[in-house]
Amino acid sequence: MKNVKGILFDIGGVLYVGESPVPGAVETIAALQGRYQMRFVTNSTRRPPATIYGKLRRMGFPVEERQLFTALGAARQIVEEAGGRAVTILTEEAEKYFGPLHCIDTASPFVVVGDAGENFNYLRLNRAFRTLMNGAKLIAAARNRYFKDADGELSMDAGGFVTALEYAAGVKATVVGKPSPEFFRQALRSMGLPPEEVIMVGDDIESDIAGAQAAGLRAVLVRTGKFRPVDLEGAVFPDAVIDSVADLPELLEGDS
Amino acid sequence: MKNVKGILFDIGGVLYVGESPVPGAVETIAALQGRYQMRFVTNSTRRPPATIYGKLRRMGFPVEERQLFTALGAARQIVEEAGGRAVTILTEEAEKYFGPLHCIDTASPFVVVGDAGENFNYLRLNRAFRTLMNGAKLIAAARNRYFKDADGELSMDAGGFVTALEYAAGVKATVVGKPSPEFFRQALRSMGLPPEEVIMVGDDIESDIAGAQAAGLRAVLVRTGKFRPVDLEGAVFPDAVIDSVADLPELLEGDS
Repeated sequence: MKNVKGILFDIGGVLYVGESPVPGAVETIAALQGRYQMRFVTNSTRRPPATIYGKLRRMGFPVEERQLFTALGAARQIVEEAGGRAVTILTEEAEKYFGPLHCIDTASPFVVVGDAGENFNYLRLNRAFRTLMNGAKLIAAARNRYFKDADGELSMDAGGFVTALEYAAGVKATVVGKPSPEFFRQALRSMGLPPEEVIMVGDDIESDIAGAQAAGLRAVLVRTGKFRPVDLEGAVFPDAVIDSVADLPELLEGDS
Repeated sequence: MKNVKGILFDIGGVLYVGESPVPGAVETIAALQGRYQMRFVTNSTRRPPATIYGKLRRMGFPVEERQLFTALGAARQIVEEAGGRAVTILTEEAEKYFGPLHCIDTASPFVVVGDAGENFNYLRLNRAFRTLMNGAKLIAAARNRYFKDADGELSMDAGGFVTALEYAAGVKATVVGKPSPEFFRQALRSMGLPPEEVIMVGDDIESDIAGAQAAGLRAVLVRTGKFRPVDLEGAVFPDAVIDSVADLPELLEGDS
C-alpha cells in the first residue's frame, strides 16, 4: 500500500478480542508508532474513554491518550456543548461518565444510546421512546449491528435498539461514531492529513470499511474479531484483507 | 356510509381502553349484531385469544368466539402448520399459549415476536437474534409502533423490537397481524364478503386504517384509544372519523 502517512485503528476485535491482545498486535503498534501518525477510533461505548485507554496500556500497547477517539466521548460532547441533559441507554459505567448530563426526565432535549448490554430493557427503552415523542433529539453513539461476545458468539449491538426507537417514535438518529463521516473527519483533522494519505484498519465491514471508504480513506479488513467470511460476499470491497493486524507492517512494506 | 354488509372491529382502544369499555360500545355492538356480519380483529398479543374473548364477555360485549381473529393465533398457526418450533418473545401468558411449540433452542426454524412488555429484555432479544443468524424465519405477530398504556401515556409496542431484530440480523419479518393484507383477507373469507362491502373500525392510523384501505376495505377512525390529532395530518386519509364506536350506528344510518 502506497502513500500512507496516517493509520486509524479500530480497537476491539483488531487490537484485542475480549481480554486478550491479538497475537503480535502490541509489537505491531510499537513498530509503527513514530513512523506513522496514528489514531485509535472506537465505537465501543460500554466503557468511558479513560477505561479503554487504561486497558490498552495494561496490555502493553504504547498508545497516548490524545490518540484515542471514542464514540461515547463524541456523544457526550454534543450534549455538553448544547448545554442540555440526556436520557441515556448506556452501561452503568458509561452512564457515570455522563455524570450530571444524564437524567431520567422525559422532557430532556436529548436521548443518547450506546451499547448498553443488559441495560437494554423495556423500562429504559420506553423512557427513551417517551422522551423522543416529547421532541428530544436521538443521538446514537454507534449503530453497529452486532459484536463478538465473550462466549465467542455474535451478540446484538446498539444498532438494533437505535433502529427500534427510530421506528417507534418516527424519528431519525444522528450517529456520532463510525460510520459517520464526521467522526472520521475529526480524527483526520487531529492528524492534519487528507483522507487519501490515511488508512483505516478494522473488523467491521460496515462501520469500519464502508464508513472509512465513504469518507475517502482506504480500508483494510482484518480476519479477527467479528469478521465472518460472508462479509466478503456483500457489496463492500475492502482495499485489502489481512489475517490480523500483525500482518499490517508487511502490507505497508515498500511504503514509508 | 352505503353498501356495508360486514364490519371489522379493532378491540383495544375501540371497544375498551384499559379495563373500561368505551361508553356506549357494548350497546353499539349489541345493536349491530345480527344486522351486520362482524369480526373482531386484534393485534393485541399480550394475551391468548381465549383471555381476550373472556374479557369482552365479562364487559358485556355480545360476541361469539368464532368472530375473534387475533394476530397471536395467526402466528401460532404458521409455526404449527410447518411442524416447527419457535423461539418466542412474548408475555408469559402468550408463551404458555404456544405450549410445546415454544422453545429456547437457537437452532429453531422460527422466531415469533409479539408485544412482550417487560419481556423485551436483552437476554430474550439476543437469543432471538442468534436464532435468526442461524437461519430462522422471523414472524411478527404485529409491528405496531406504540399503544396507549395503563398510565395514559403511549408506550412502545412490538414494532420497534421487530425492526431491531431485522436490522441486527439483516432479515425481513413476515407480519401476520394487521396491516398484513392476508390477515384482512382471512377475516373477509370467513364472512363470505368482498372488501367493498366491509368496513374496518380502528384507532391505529397505520395498522387499522392504512392496512384496511390497502386491502380494499373502507376504514373508519375513532378518536379513542391511541388516536392523536396528528394522525390526521399524515398521508393516510380515513373514509370517516368518529368520536367513538358509539357513533357508528349514526354513520351507518340510511344504510341497511
